[in-house]
Amino acid sequence: MKIENYLFSAKTSGLKKNGQLDLALIFSNVPLRVSAVFTKNKIKAAPVILSKKNSKNIIRALIVNSGNANACNGADGIKDAKKVMSLASEALNIKEENILICSTGVIGERLDTSKIENSLPELVKSLSEDGAEQVARAIMTTDTFPKVVVKNMTINNKNYHILGMAKGSGMIMPNMATMLAFIMTDLPLSKNLGDALFKECVKYSFNSITVDGDTSTNDTAFFLYPDADMYFGNNEPAYGSGKDSAFKGILEKDINYDIVKYSVGEVCFSLAKMIAEDGEGATKSVTVEVINAYSELSAKKIAFSVANSPLVKTAIAGEDLNWGRIMMAIGKTDARIKPNYVDIYINNFKIVENSKSLGFIGAENEKKIMSQKEINIKIDLKCGPSFFKVLTCDFTNEYININASYRS
Amino acid sequence: MKIENYLFSAKTSGLKKNGQLDLALIFSNVPLRVSAVFTKNKIKAAPVILSKKNSKNIIRALIVNSGNANACNGADGIKDAKKVMSLASEALNIKEENILICSTGVIGERLDTSKIENSLPELVKSLSEDGAEQVARAIMTTDTFPKVVVKNMTINNKNYHILGMAKGSGMIMPNMATMLAFIMTDLPLSKNLGDALFKECVKYSFNSITVDGDTSTNDTAFFLYPDADMYFGNNEPAYGSGKDSAFKGILEKDINYDIVKYSVGEVCFSLAKMIAEDGEGATKSVTVEVINAYSELSAKKIAFSVANSPLVKTAIAGEDLNWGRIMMAIGKTDARIKPNYVDIYINNFKIVENSKSLGFIGAENEKKIMSQKEINIKIDLKCGPSFFKVLTCDFTNEYININASYRS
Repeated sequence: MKIENYLFSAKTSGLKKNGQLDLALIFSNVPLRVSAVFTKNKIKAAPVILSKKNSKNIIRALIVNSGNANACNGADGIKDAKKVMSLASEALNIKEENILICSTGVIGERLDTSKIENSLPELVKSLSEDGAEQVARAIMTTDTFPKVVVKNMTINNKNYHILGMAKGSGMIMPNMATMLAFIMTDLPLSKNLGDALFKECVKYSFNSITVDGDTSTNDTAFFLYPDADMYFGNNEPAYGSGKDSAFKGILEKDINYDIVKYSVGEVCFSLAKMIAEDGEGATKSVTVEVINAYSELSAKKIAFSVANSPLVKTAIAGEDLNWGRIMMAIGKTDARIKPNYVDIYINNFKIVENSKSLGFIGAENEKKIMSQKEINIKIDLKCGPSFFKVLTCDFTNEYININASYRS
Repeated sequence: MKIENYLFSAKTSGLKKNGQLDLALIFSNVPLRVSAVFTKNKIKAAPVILSKKNSKNIIRALIVNSGNANACNGADGIKDAKKVMSLASEALNIKEENILICSTGVIGERLDTSKIENSLPELVKSLSEDGAEQVARAIMTTDTFPKVVVKNMTINNKNYHILGMAKGSGMIMPNMATMLAFIMTDLPLSKNLGDALFKECVKYSFNSITVDGDTSTNDTAFFLYPDADMYFGNNEPAYGSGKDSAFKGILEKDINYDIVKYSVGEVCFSLAKMIAEDGEGATKSVTVEVINAYSELSAKKIAFSVANSPLVKTAIAGEDLNWGRIMMAIGKTDARIKPNYVDIYINNFKIVENSKSLGFIGAENEKKIMSQKEINIKIDLKCGPSFFKVLTCDFTNEYININASYRS
């Protein structure tokens, strides 16, 4: 799990009480650009504010800690995050303005920067090409497994890589548990293309497990790539490292751009699916697809209404084919529908036609459908051309247990 | 628990599988008017459609069943509901257009009208002044206790009564469990005043446990009263039954109107609070007050965001003073706030000032606050003149147990 020019490292600094990895560093040998998506929550954590500022600059490093979100700490929070950036700047011998920072964990407690300070020399020393999975472990909070995806793509007969990692669980949207996602590639792109591409990828992946604005204080997604623009003014090869020196990266929306977009999109979608499946206490992976809606917005509203309904989610946990709850969730949004023309399929089994039950399908069939680990709810609104798909999970007792005792 | 001219009756018809009361009748000796609030869900149950139509007419009776919602049954649902109204019409010797109908229970199963037909003669025969609490029991589904409130008010030196009953649990808003509320008075009102008055009362009571549009297929609230207008054209006393024959009811927005509004408001609020406290598996009663908001709408959005956050609700169940989750829920709506000027009080204990923790209050203080049965979260936005209060409850394992197995 390597990716050219990227180095990784993770350590236990003591910010997590359980002695697990909680501090990580990603460093690039070459100057990068970042396309970033931050939380839309009005209460933003200090690292979000600082990273947002630096995201316009060249990027060389990303430092991230778990165990403490450094959110709701006022001016002290900004001071502490700046301290971490200054320490990293010194240890790596790069400018502060070229560093990104993320935090995740408990809110409202001061970040103990001395712990980071103590761990930094060792963290820098152990940077290596092979540390990506350790970094993915170090950013976990309530996650039950690290989330890493690697994908190759061939551009101009050369092989490039995309490496993505993420943390997040808790079914995100109703919970606002923090999501962090870092996607890296060794393929140079121009910043404006990277921004356009990542925005689209996020829409159909991370934003299909959360909704605009309904995010935590710390949510952050970064897409990092060598800056293709930087090296073209003077006609130098883009980091000419054995790659085709005539090819300088993605500079326009051509066929190569489409390949990259598709590949980055796949990485993002895989990570989003892992997050949805790692819902706290979840036992089932659930997709809600709304098809033939008037507009994408109405498809999205209805998909989220169903996916976020505790009544629907508990019924799925109980393996109860309670389609009435799905109907309620469809009807309750302000999205336009034809109330008497809704069809519902569960795992491709049609159970509702024109808003009416097709009758009891028999206990055996019901068990067969609902005992599956993957539940697909498809809602055909028969209104228009638009669709939206949302990823989620079921809602179990374990969820309550985890969240009632999170801080203790 | 009597109210002049109203008769009540409840029976076990077999619609509920557990043999509990499931069919009820309210009958009035005098012609009534109704001010009605129905679900805003686009998927409306058959009884909602029929009652809405009749709510413009004079009302003499209300027939209601539990155990079956008669929702999502298409044309069959309408046919079945009409059948019930026709049976009631015959049994009571009144017109169908003067009957209201409600159903609550499982969705998408045909209503077995033969059970209602078999029970109707006995139901009509046992109508009595004393049956209100039995009716409140007969409309229960997942409710753990019947909800009845009685209030007296003195108007023109005479004593009048308000009797309210409701069903609903499941924290309503995130769940969309059905809410039914029937409020009755023996004080005559004109229909336009009754409508105005009830709309305001609902806003600060039932709509403080649910939000506009976010309601089940069957939600219904009725306010029933003798029609003051009907009897004034010919100068007859309003049902001159020992009351002051010179006084004919509330016909304008005078001091008496204010007294009635206040009293009906109190009855509605008490019922709403009972519903919130009867949240499925709830152990604590929670109020979320947002004060000094820019507008009532923004206060309402934020109050509901906090009250409906599963993360906040599980923390309360776990007696964990996790104010960071409250901050997240405040920030996530699109309501305007000053992100650095939020104060939070829990049970009048100030824990956040200007969006920053006031520091650890000590394990003993924390336990003292969070172990209370009633939790009040007060959020001071320091932005403007507006406020909104929402009622809810905590979120426990028991909730999952109830809802995963509701149909079985």
